Amino acid sequence: MSEPVRIGLLGRGTVGGAFAGLLAERAGAIEAATGRRPELAGTLTRSEGEIGAILERSDLVVELIGGTDPARTYVLDALRAGRPVVTANKQLLAQHGDELFGVAREAGVQLRFEAAVAGVIPIVRTIQESFGVTEIDKVFGIVNGTTNFILTEMAASGAAYEQVLARAQELGYAEADPSDDVNGADAAAKMAILARLAFHTPVGLDQVPYEGIEGVTPDDLAYAKEFGLSLKLLGVAERRDGGISVRVFPCFLYDGHPLAPVGGPFNAVMVEAPAITEVTMSGPGAGGVETASAVLGDVVSILSGEAPVHETREQLPLVADVSSSFYLHLEVADEPGVLARIAQVLGEKEISVKSVVQRGAGADARLVMVVHECLESSFAAAVDEIGRLEEIRSTPRFIRVIEEEFV
Amino acid sequence: MSEPVRIGLLGRGTVGGAFAGLLAERAGAIEAATGRRPELAGTLTRSEGEIGAILERSDLVVELIGGTDPARTYVLDALRAGRPVVTANKQLLAQHGDELFGVAREAGVQLRFEAAVAGVIPIVRTIQESFGVTEIDKVFGIVNGTTNFILTEMAASGAAYEQVLARAQELGYAEADPSDDVNGADAAAKMAILARLAFHTPVGLDQVPYEGIEGVTPDDLAYAKEFGLSLKLLGVAERRDGGISVRVFPCFLYDGHPLAPVGGPFNAVMVEAPAITEVTMSGPGAGGVETASAVLGDVVSILSGEAPVHETREQLPLVADVSSSFYLHLEVADEPGVLARIAQVLGEKEISVKSVVQRGAGADARLVMVVHECLESSFAAAVDEIGRLEEIRSTPRFIRVIEEEFV
Repeated sequence: MSEPVRIGLLGRGTVGGAFAGLLAERAGAIEAATGRRPELAGTLTRSEGEIGAILERSDLVVELIGGTDPARTYVLDALRAGRPVVTANKQLLAQHGDELFGVAREAGVQLRFEAAVAGVIPIVRTIQESFGVTEIDKVFGIVNGTTNFILTEMAASGAAYEQVLARAQELGYAEADPSDDVNGADAAAKMAILARLAFHTPVGLDQVPYEGIEGVTPDDLAYAKEFGLSLKLLGVAERRDGGISVRVFPCFLYDGHPLAPVGGPFNAVMVEAPAITEVTMSGPGAGGVETASAVLGDVVSILSGEAPVHETREQLPLVADVSSSFYLHLEVADEPGVLARIAQVLGEKEISVKSVVQRGAGADARLVMVVHECLESSFAAAVDEIGRLEEIRSTPRFIRVIEEEFV
Repeated sequence: MSEPVRIGLLGRGTVGGAFAGLLAERAGAIEAATGRRPELAGTLTRSEGEIGAILERSDLVVELIGGTDPARTYVLDALRAGRPVVTANKQLLAQHGDELFGVAREAGVQLRFEAAVAGVIPIVRTIQESFGVTEIDKVFGIVNGTTNFILTEMAASGAAYEQVLARAQELGYAEADPSDDVNGADAAAKMAILARLAFHTPVGLDQVPYEGIEGVTPDDLAYAKEFGLSLKLLGVAERRDGGISVRVFPCFLYDGHPLAPVGGPFNAVMVEAPAITEVTMSGPGAGGVETASAVLGDVVSILSGEAPVHETREQLPLVADVSSSFYLHLEVADEPGVLARIAQVLGEKEISVKSVVQRGAGADARLVMVVHECLESSFAAAVDEIGRLEEIRSTPRFIRVIEEEFV
């Protein structure tokens, strides 16, 4: 019988506990698949274990502490000591990717992180391995389950954001402090990682502008239904104008878009490239055992053979002003000529209207429209000007739209 | 600069030509990713090249001839000569998997075949690597693009099977002789491969019963719409009663099922396991450049490092009689008591009716129903008995249904 492989586990919260359970349960299968039986060599928690001693007696380290400190130090120590590392830590990779991958390459050991993005969906492996030499145009999708659950529930029930958030917290789909999920920061960290892998270029969290869903109203969702639109918090990383654009924003999708039916806490990611057309992958984006399962897949890959460490080989600029299509919601005075004045402002900025509905009357009159793709700076200027018209009764609201219609 | 890696290409049809083009186009990216620049060492076609000479000067062999003979001999020769092989040949693997994997293991070289199933969707890698030690319950999906295109068009247009098939041939989605696609044999070969990987057990093509779509009528699709159903040709491999069941059959899905919106020539595969819940992957199932892209991904993986060769480690029995839910279409005499007699036969076999509609009158009277899950042998016996009732005017038609409803 061959030597067992000793695994050092850093962190034993929900995912850490699930991982330890899964490792024990699947030990036989792991031995059958890799020829080596895994065993836990030690666990580091706030109250137990010492990092030096655990590294000493481990062949491989699994980091599930989360956050950047002390996780960063521990992972760097492990890599420098020649231990391959598996981590589920998106913040760590999004903020310190260059340093971590650099040290892993120098040390010649693997650093794997499937669980850091989109849970059990094998998007990291797919981009790195299946599409590793594919000229990817675009990676985008729903990479935060909390917000997708909230938006799905709001659309189904018509309830307000605060009410649905409270329900998500009860069900365990949102944390007590949900800020990083609902404001888009969590999705931004994941998109920084995916953009780095897809475009082989260094992308840091601070280069990813993000918007959240806190301002979404039941009204927006109700009006959008009339256009056949459903709302998602999208992360988008794409080639634009010789560089790349990486962003997170709430966005309407037309019925028939592959991401439109993805509901509840599920995640889904699409990859587009000329040589593959498009591939869509969906599944649970979080959950203790699902995340642990993704971590275990990485452990098995390390035991199964060598793989190169991620290396950036491009230095693509990040493009700031891109084109988008928009949904625009205006509370207007119920007077003749209002639509004409608004249309004139849009026309002067070369923004064309795709569809428009008028609703309500008197103090409740509204204009809701979708405009075709235009430079975001032009749209912002137009909205600014429209907002200052005397016929406009409150601040205009707008949300991006993916215009593509599917059959 | 390191030595180039010399690739021997067997077959230069649509996929072979696309692969040669893609290899040249991405040579720089491959060198950046793997440290080795690929070059074509020779091409074998019907009119040019000699297998011995090509093996002699190749480091790696790509088999894109198709069919089992002479592809089998060539692949075995290559493996025995210590050359890793990438193939897109589903028939070869479904019929000679045990032999090929055995020889690859003995020779200690990789045998990769992502392109053999579901084109560019990385389902082989996902099952083998990401979920390699996951206890998978079920792998199922749409693995034939030709039939999915035909069914999508029939449902959209109401046109007859023959008419839509002719259109698919015009558009290049169906071959001049479409038999293996439309009768389910092509999907069966793919499911044999996926079942082998998911359950680590030997599964040969001759163990996979299959049914095709040749008998589907516009009527079936129209009635099914009333139940909120859409028709797909499904391949299913699942654990049942201590063994596994692997089958291909046309099947209705309720709206909201993740596979229901997969239209046109696209493929989609779902994997279910307790530790992952479910993961769905969709994308183009065929096409020259997409298939070539999957082949190239395998080539890059071989250049990037070692990976174990597939090995069966179970000997699970294949279960024949499984439970299913059914759609049942009956042309009946327009008389009182017909439904009661049919319901009595179903009741005697302990088959319960989920929903039923009556349509038409006189010589055009029909009963269309969906029954809940029951043993397929019980259903077959009930249909046989119903077919012999004097009130039944033609042979009953039935199609399986996945009963699960989604919200």
